[in-house]
Amino acid sequence: MRNINEHTITAAVLERMADCENPRLKEIMSALVRHMHDFAREVKLTEAEWAAGIEFLTATGQKCDGKRQEFILLSDTLGLSMLTVAMNHAKSAQATEATVFGPFHVQGAPRLPLGGDISGGAAGEPLFVRAVVRGRDGEPVADAEVDVWEADAEGFYDVQRTGLDRPQGRAVFRTDGEGRLWFRGVMPVAYPIPTDGPVGVMLRATKRHPWRPAHVHFMIQAPGYETLITHVFRDGDRYLDSDAVFGVRSSLIGDFASHPAGAGPDGSVLSTPFHTLNFDFVLEPAAVAG
Amino acid sequence: MRNINEHTITAAVLERMADCENPRLKEIMSALVRHMHDFAREVKLTEAEWAAGIEFLTATGQKCDGKRQEFILLSDTLGLSMLTVAMNHAKSAQATEATVFGPFHVQGAPRLPLGGDISGGAAGEPLFVRAVVRGRDGEPVADAEVDVWEADAEGFYDVQRTGLDRPQGRAVFRTDGEGRLWFRGVMPVAYPIPTDGPVGVMLRATKRHPWRPAHVHFMIQAPGYETLITHVFRDGDRYLDSDAVFGVRSSLIGDFASHPAGAGPDGSVLSTPFHTLNFDFVLEPAAVAG
Ligand SMILES: [Fe+2]
Ligand SMILES: [Fe+2]
Repeated sequence: MRNINEHTITAAVLERMADCENPRLKEIMSALVRHMHDFAREVKLTEAEWAAGIEFLTATGQKCDGKRQEFILLSDTLGLSMLTVAMNHAKSAQATEATVFGPFHVQGAPRLPLGGDISGGAAGEPLFVRAVVRGRDGEPVADAEVDVWEADAEGFYDVQRTGLDRPQGRAVFRTDGEGRLWFRGVMPVAYPIPTDGPVGVMLRATKRHPWRPAHVHFMIQAPGYETLITHVFRDGDRYLDSDAVFGVRSSLIGDFASHPAGAGPDGSVLSTPFHTLNFDFVLEPAAVAG
Repeated sequence: MRNINEHTITAAVLERMADCENPRLKEIMSALVRHMHDFAREVKLTEAEWAAGIEFLTATGQKCDGKRQEFILLSDTLGLSMLTVAMNHAKSAQATEATVFGPFHVQGAPRLPLGGDISGGAAGEPLFVRAVVRGRDGEPVADAEVDVWEADAEGFYDVQRTGLDRPQGRAVFRTDGEGRLWFRGVMPVAYPIPTDGPVGVMLRATKRHPWRPAHVHFMIQAPGYETLITHVFRDGDRYLDSDAVFGVRSSLIGDFASHPAGAGPDGSVLSTPFHTLNFDFVLEPAAVAG
């Protein structure tokens, strides 16, 4: 213990956790220490480099506030978020695939009736979404709670804007008795993840672009089913093969149809071109009842 | 790219850094991604666990300010700091060993003449330190800049206290023409690293104690020599075999002698018992001239 070297220190740190009474915590912390030490040894990390790493981590934490979560962005851009999602949702072939949650969800978005407009006045070409939520055996899931969120026509979520007096681009719906959901929003566009913080520094330093292909976020919760957190991506987007956060699944690419100005699907008359999306979601049964 | 799974995502993230023009940055980031992904896969990290991890990292960054560096504490307590030190200072047998820098150094400590008192009025039993700084061939190193810092009798560094109107327990000296250094301070005591932040949560959760054996910090810089960052530990301390940050080296344990009240080594008359420490430092030649 008084003469630990670069090879024996890992065992010494693990030994120090011998009394940890939470076996899962012990397993996770032990694996973290082993892998972090292996990383440092593999690259023979210098003290100056590690000081830069600590400075980066510190800045990442300090960039976070009620509306900004830079560590989620870091996890997303290093593929850790999608890896975790993929490991925990190895679904049956029928069920809708999950993808990253991202940093832009907000608890307590406005509850809207079916057919409502989630835009809250945000700019964008009108988009009419129709969906059915079903279980794996095809049964409609009535009264499912569906959180929807999306960026505006400039690629910003409402939480990235200042001076808004109400939420924009987000709402919570409940499916009807036949599992149906329909609402109006705006056509999503590709957007860069925020690059004014440490994650932006990292992306530039490694010559990576910050873009995500256009998408609408969905979180669907219903008793007896596993919660589904996913996106529907806009077909044809130039970033479908290089999403900055590795979230694209081909099964999640929606069929967005474009229509000239005229009668919209909700009976209104639209003075601009508009878009429609039909997409059905299939939920897994809950792993454990409750 | 549209159908990445938990196994293929690592290659996808590495591929994304293909254009990075800094080969060392690319090497470090690639190794970090591989090891972090391996960690997540090995423990099959759940989304809730990773959310807790992100919350922990965020809190760690937000605990940092001008006087507190919680990420250094985290690195120290996970053995990463000492591992990095050990890898980068595989010294010759003669040279003094390096140990962790720690979070309590302050730039611009008071410059004192040899023989000065670094305590700044901090409580503690008097300690008189005598040292010689030499090179590997035994040559004295004149005019070496020596940063010294230590905690007070209650185990606190000045930066952990509020309301002080001057530095305590820290100073910068220059060795004389024969490489000698002598100063007065206070006898160091074992202290717990700060546990009022996320690192304290981690230590408690893993049933680890936060104590460091008593020590005095030294940083010695001189042209033509490698900078030495080290401690001298107090012999007999109960935590020498379980330093919370894995910094003890047996070669760094000093021989602290205790003396009754009476004539001190600086000619003063002391009304309380006091201590003396004689310790010599041996510097490595600089790896690269400059
Ligand atoms: Fe998004
Ligand atoms: Fe210390």
